[in-house]
Amino acid sequence: MTTTGQTPLTIQSQGSFAVGGTVTSQPGAFDPRNPTDPAGQTLHGDHPRVSCQIPVDPRPLPLLLWHGWWEDSSCWGTTPDGREGFTSLFLRRGFAVYTLDQPRRGSAGKTTVAAPVSTAPNEQWFFNQFRLGEWPDLYPGVQFSEDSGALEQFFRGMVPDTGPIDADVLVAGASAALAAIGPSILVTHSHAGGFGWLTDMQDSNVRAVVSFEPGSGFVFPKGEVPPPMPSANGTLEGVPVPLDKFLALTRVPIVVYYGDNIPTEPTDISGRDNWRVRLAMARLWVDAINRHGGDAELVYLPEIGITGNTHFAFSDLNNVQIADQVSAFLAKKGLG
Amino acid sequence: MTTTGQTPLTIQSQGSFAVGGTVTSQPGAFDPRNPTDPAGQTLHGDHPRVSCQIPVDPRPLPLLLWHGWWEDSSCWGTTPDGREGFTSLFLRRGFAVYTLDQPRRGSAGKTTVAAPVSTAPNEQWFFNQFRLGEWPDLYPGVQFSEDSGALEQFFRGMVPDTGPIDADVLVAGASAALAAIGPSILVTHSHAGGFGWLTDMQDSNVRAVVSFEPGSGFVFPKGEVPPPMPSANGTLEGVPVPLDKFLALTRVPIVVYYGDNIPTEPTDISGRDNWRVRLAMARLWVDAINRHGGDAELVYLPEIGITGNTHFAFSDLNNVQIADQVSAFLAKKGLG
Repeated sequence: MTTTGQTPLTIQSQGSFAVGGTVTSQPGAFDPRNPTDPAGQTLHGDHPRVSCQIPVDPRPLPLLLWHGWWEDSSCWGTTPDGREGFTSLFLRRGFAVYTLDQPRRGSAGKTTVAAPVSTAPNEQWFFNQFRLGEWPDLYPGVQFSEDSGALEQFFRGMVPDTGPIDADVLVAGASAALAAIGPSILVTHSHAGGFGWLTDMQDSNVRAVVSFEPGSGFVFPKGEVPPPMPSANGTLEGVPVPLDKFLALTRVPIVVYYGDNIPTEPTDISGRDNWRVRLAMARLWVDAINRHGGDAELVYLPEIGITGNTHFAFSDLNNVQIADQVSAFLAKKGLG
Repeated sequence: MTTTGQTPLTIQSQGSFAVGGTVTSQPGAFDPRNPTDPAGQTLHGDHPRVSCQIPVDPRPLPLLLWHGWWEDSSCWGTTPDGREGFTSLFLRRGFAVYTLDQPRRGSAGKTTVAAPVSTAPNEQWFFNQFRLGEWPDLYPGVQFSEDSGALEQFFRGMVPDTGPIDADVLVAGASAALAAIGPSILVTHSHAGGFGWLTDMQDSNVRAVVSFEPGSGFVFPKGEVPPPMPSANGTLEGVPVPLDKFLALTRVPIVVYYGDNIPTEPTDISGRDNWRVRLAMARLWVDAINRHGGDAELVYLPEIGITGNTHFAFSDLNNVQIADQVSAFLAKKGLG
């Protein structure tokens, strides 16, 4: 971690807690003489773990950072090339920063429902899917270090699920976190994007949404769902919800960011074509929110001159520039 | 988290990194048109994740905190009742603090070898085994909050393994962490105790060992292994190692702490009897180290007037007093 020339961080308090979750139990009576028998015993699981750092005199609204698929909260802490991630960057900007390990991931791995932990080699898939490049080549000009150590950190930063991904469990966990934290700016990445909308739709503690490359869960009012979008990575479909639920998305400012190297024409390279339809669907989604009186904005970073970003703009080489974009958005909305 | 009246922490740098580990790969060629096929793909796993916070002008030797069974690094951050854990306490005392998520646990969950994630209810077992009390009653005077929220945090702080516990993988991971960090004071809890000796025996970066309630892995020179110790929780056996390897344990100061409510006479309550033999074996182990010219010390906390501690003295209600003990030990050895 780079320390040279860096102003120290001043932290009023820090720590972590579990929140929400479920409890299962086995019928019978616990026998302290046979304690490995589950009879009469409980299992608390399916909670998120929330880690937090609160600076001295924080701004009114904290950030709640929610990682994506195959990640945990550490993705926000340090970049693959060893620089400060969003946690430290936004602490420096005066925000209290909460990060989530979603239920059944990382430090919140205690699950009441088992699922096999994946051990199938899959990193070349994710190299492409996360748009570092087309394996084994990084994209020209990509905002990812050419140092092989950075790629190793990236691969080792991935974290498998300990149980099934269950939208209800994830949204309940995020809502429990928000109930504990209070009004917050929800920052999501990738698959947390869709779960984030679902949380926002039912939780008035969400005061703004900053979403990096949402990949699914694009909700539309019933009757307004766009046609399915086929791609080389499967068909993406909008999700119909009742209009009154959809309208909850119109009450807070939303910004969605996408990085670079997303094709406009179909390609048979799955990891690229995947994002062609996701970006297209996100544009329609933002339009639908605004059509219904909301305040949503989509920023395709190359369109504002910021090029080379991967699926992980917040930890890319230019992540300070990306943080500046987020800061400017929050300031514009009176939240910064 | 309590913030009232607390001096802010001043952090020069913070973050996390993965280190060590293994890589598996699938024969064949990666096909970007069929990216979920493992052919030609890699999997990086079996690494620990090391999180660190470095204060301004740290003391020469950092602490490396290594959690126990069913735990991850968060056990050092915040106590079950919401106060500062050893991470923040020792940052305040000027130490750089590194914490480990051991391979196949928590944020280091990416594993190359699968094992079923445990979902069997087991918390009453651990309530007893970790000596909070005899379920459902806390021990009288125990250093654990009577607030039910604390017990819930305790249960939800447990983290299952994502793969098999493999001593070689764990020791290799800890050694890789030490190679990255440099000379350190190794602080272990419970089952990390035994893995910690193994690391110490092969790694000259360990400059002192502080071990909370080691539960297994008591190594002795061949020919000096004490008789097996039967208990209501199975038979504890010392582990024979060659004398020259054992002697590595004589080159650094070692302190071992045990909490309260450990019986001296056999009992059929497994969670209590377990510690009777472990404390007895630890006493013999310390004697063996000192007999061979080492510098080891066992502190059974009630013997120095500190009562009520559970298996988790570092996060008990009196954890500041426990930190004072550790500070005094380090100062006495010229490491503080």
